[in-house]
Amino acid sequence: MNFDSIFNAAQEAFLFYKNLSGKEKGEFLETLAEILESHRPEIVPLAVKESNLPEGRINGELGRTTGQIKLFANLVKEGSWIEATIDPAMPDRTPLPRADIRRMLTPIGPVVVFGASNFPLAFSTAGGDTISALASGCPVIYKAHPAHPETSKKVAECIHEAILKCGLPSALFTHVEGGITEGQALVKHPQAKAVAFTGSHAGGKALFDLANQREEPIPVYAEMGSVNPIFCFPKKLEQNLDGLAKAFVSSLTLGVGQFCTNPGLIFVPESQAKAFENAISAELKDIASAPMLHPGIAQAYYDSIQFLESREELRWVKVADPKHLINGSTALAEIKASDWLSDHIFQKEVFGAFAMMVVYQSQEELEEIAKHLHGQLTITVWADEEELKNQLFLINLLEEKCGRLLFKGVPTGVEVGYAMQHGGPYPSTTAPNSTSVGAHAIKRFARPIAFQDMPQELLPDALKEGNPLGIWRLVNGEYRQ
Amino acid sequence: MNFDSIFNAAQEAFLFYKNLSGKEKGEFLETLAEILESHRPEIVPLAVKESNLPEGRINGELGRTTGQIKLFANLVKEGSWIEATIDPAMPDRTPLPRADIRRMLTPIGPVVVFGASNFPLAFSTAGGDTISALASGCPVIYKAHPAHPETSKKVAECIHEAILKCGLPSALFTHVEGGITEGQALVKHPQAKAVAFTGSHAGGKALFDLANQREEPIPVYAEMGSVNPIFCFPKKLEQNLDGLAKAFVSSLTLGVGQFCTNPGLIFVPESQAKAFENAISAELKDIASAPMLHPGIAQAYYDSIQFLESREELRWVKVADPKHLINGSTALAEIKASDWLSDHIFQKEVFGAFAMMVVYQSQEELEEIAKHLHGQLTITVWADEEELKNQLFLINLLEEKCGRLLFKGVPTGVEVGYAMQHGGPYPSTTAPNSTSVGAHAIKRFARPIAFQDMPQELLPDALKEGNPLGIWRLVNGEYRQ
Repeated sequence: MNFDSIFNAAQEAFLFYKNLSGKEKGEFLETLAEILESHRPEIVPLAVKESNLPEGRINGELGRTTGQIKLFANLVKEGSWIEATIDPAMPDRTPLPRADIRRMLTPIGPVVVFGASNFPLAFSTAGGDTISALASGCPVIYKAHPAHPETSKKVAECIHEAILKCGLPSALFTHVEGGITEGQALVKHPQAKAVAFTGSHAGGKALFDLANQREEPIPVYAEMGSVNPIFCFPKKLEQNLDGLAKAFVSSLTLGVGQFCTNPGLIFVPESQAKAFENAISAELKDIASAPMLHPGIAQAYYDSIQFLESREELRWVKVADPKHLINGSTALAEIKASDWLSDHIFQKEVFGAFAMMVVYQSQEELEEIAKHLHGQLTITVWADEEELKNQLFLINLLEEKCGRLLFKGVPTGVEVGYAMQHGGPYPSTTAPNSTSVGAHAIKRFARPIAFQDMPQELLPDALKEGNPLGIWRLVNGEYRQ
Repeated sequence: MNFDSIFNAAQEAFLFYKNLSGKEKGEFLETLAEILESHRPEIVPLAVKESNLPEGRINGELGRTTGQIKLFANLVKEGSWIEATIDPAMPDRTPLPRADIRRMLTPIGPVVVFGASNFPLAFSTAGGDTISALASGCPVIYKAHPAHPETSKKVAECIHEAILKCGLPSALFTHVEGGITEGQALVKHPQAKAVAFTGSHAGGKALFDLANQREEPIPVYAEMGSVNPIFCFPKKLEQNLDGLAKAFVSSLTLGVGQFCTNPGLIFVPESQAKAFENAISAELKDIASAPMLHPGIAQAYYDSIQFLESREELRWVKVADPKHLINGSTALAEIKASDWLSDHIFQKEVFGAFAMMVVYQSQEELEEIAKHLHGQLTITVWADEEELKNQLFLINLLEEKCGRLLFKGVPTGVEVGYAMQHGGPYPSTTAPNSTSVGAHAIKRFARPIAFQDMPQELLPDALKEGNPLGIWRLVNGEYRQ
């Protein structure tokens, strides 16, 4: 496999594209959003067919995708995201004069993006990773997910339509098909500057290791899912047992459990365990099994369940029913906190609609759980006001273990906005200091550069005297527009 | 080696310290700056003795150290650095209501810091890495540099005096002595959350690899130096040949060349090469050799020079004189650009007052050089206004290769301010998206966390309604104070 010509073209496109204004980049993204919308009638049926996801969901996902594109378009048109920081010259400073130093974020170069099987649109070809890289100013070499090849090709065509319409270099986006070998070759290519990935732990970790072994190591932004624990407290359960059971089951089984924020772990006080279990069981009864994304995912789900069934610490409240291999059937097991604490295997994500209910007996156990917990994308706390007041220390501990901490609702449904943080401590991601959803995701594909005593006419507009772009800048340590 | 008790104590200190206000953290740092200043009479002679650096330099370095501490104190007292981002709830949004989501940076936990031999104060015990970690809210486990053990111990005592005076937990800072084994054990400890290092490429890369092989990989912020090329253009040289030769030699030989921003590579047009070489030679004559930091550094310097002397591509303008092993004697070699381009070995840093003058013949060669160049902390362009106008493409290429691009002056003398970027593409650092000098250095030790529907009374002050800290926040995508 030789990707030299692809990367050479991408690098050339980069040297042109990075210097376009935020306005021009934003208009390109807006054009892309429009074009995707205009191809909705072709895209949706393809994605439905290739993902087994219902049409309503795919229609919503396309809206999420274009909404996300518009968010990044607005972000780069506004322009303040580049963190312009200016320390003007102080020629008369003693003992030494200060030079004029101006710093901003600059795009890093060609980015390799891997699509996710569970979001054929929003986390795939024109998904968050691709769009935040393009918004930052980086060309994208996109490795299509083999689970939805036709959808991917169609969306790639839309991207090229937008590139053409805006008169941009075609190599700004390259669609690469293939398997693991192709993916590895892309990550190893000397001209790749970063990798973005959403998928399994095994996949993300392998790319991370590969990228670190390069002659020039590059960052891998891998979002690898997690079990997204929910901590339940007795009063809160008492107040709304059925409502919470319904919310939990609905989040657990949404999209046949195929979300990285799927709640696979729920901590329940012993006093309420039986009642809550019954309420959950009642809800689960009404959930029909449904086709998973592809046979490989279903197979992996049932294999994981089968492995867990061999563990005597678990009592099965509802067993999975693997008779139709493509269909995901819900499963729920219960375990004592002391047993759960004894083996890290009980924290391993089972991708699908399976949850482990962990029954705790005491505050001490809760704190031990918090310390023992692996890094998570999200943690949810269901407690009433009084209970929360007594849990400040626990919450302090839980903050160390997640990227997003919820006090209401469920972890599924990741809002695309300015404040979203989708990324937590390892093993949920390989880069806990970044997010793969929301405005801040753009920063993964930029690095700071400082210009010292650069002549005004050469400076990027973002750093020029008089602030021609009208962006927010930190000047001599003070925020100014 | 078992560092469990050290890390347990640091973790406990962290859970307390991270929740202090920016004001309290800032006051702790200010106290430390005062205490260091009050111990100046003891610290300076120790550092002079252990580093062979002149008293004037060490006195200046202590001022730089306390100045840096005050910068971070101001930064955390002001508080906006945490990037508060608020997307308020939209209960009436359709089709789905929006939850209240609030994001900020939060400290990551215990940080392992390695001191640098060439800055016994400003990049060591209470240097930029330690201070930016403490400012962020992280405890520091500091691995003392064996080249200045007494200085390090004395500064550690000052830190503990400040901790005691402010009533903070002693484990906020731990001073660890030892060698490579101890350093490796610290990096491998499961409770370590990040590593900061300033030193050689071999040292930094080894820690980077070690940290990536951990069960939980952690970031290594290693600043590993570079050759900091200067690109000279004919008109500029014509205008000020002697002045530029003087500036170059002064930067090259400052501190016996023991700076990571030391200009070890200078690109000169053929038309001016002979004249510039003569001017440099004249300047070099007046530079007396001076003791290097320690015998190991001097040995490595002469070993590198000796290796280069075996390369026939180099013509030696001034040979090093290794007769007093501890003394660093300047050396200068000349090479044709075509030869320089033929082997990456000519880009390897020689730590000390050695430079390679590369003679180029054409614009094409210059652009090839820019593409061939490894990642650098700094690149300097010496060109007059007219010449710059013709070099926009070259400058575009050079931006890809450095963290700081200078158009006047010399790369040594790294200003500590808000806009400084000290960190460039690999191999100059392992984390080009960060800086180890200046206000932004604090972000290395923080990661984002989002709170969803967190009750107001539990929210950190930085995210509360009404903005009680009066910091700058991004609310619904708009900057507000």
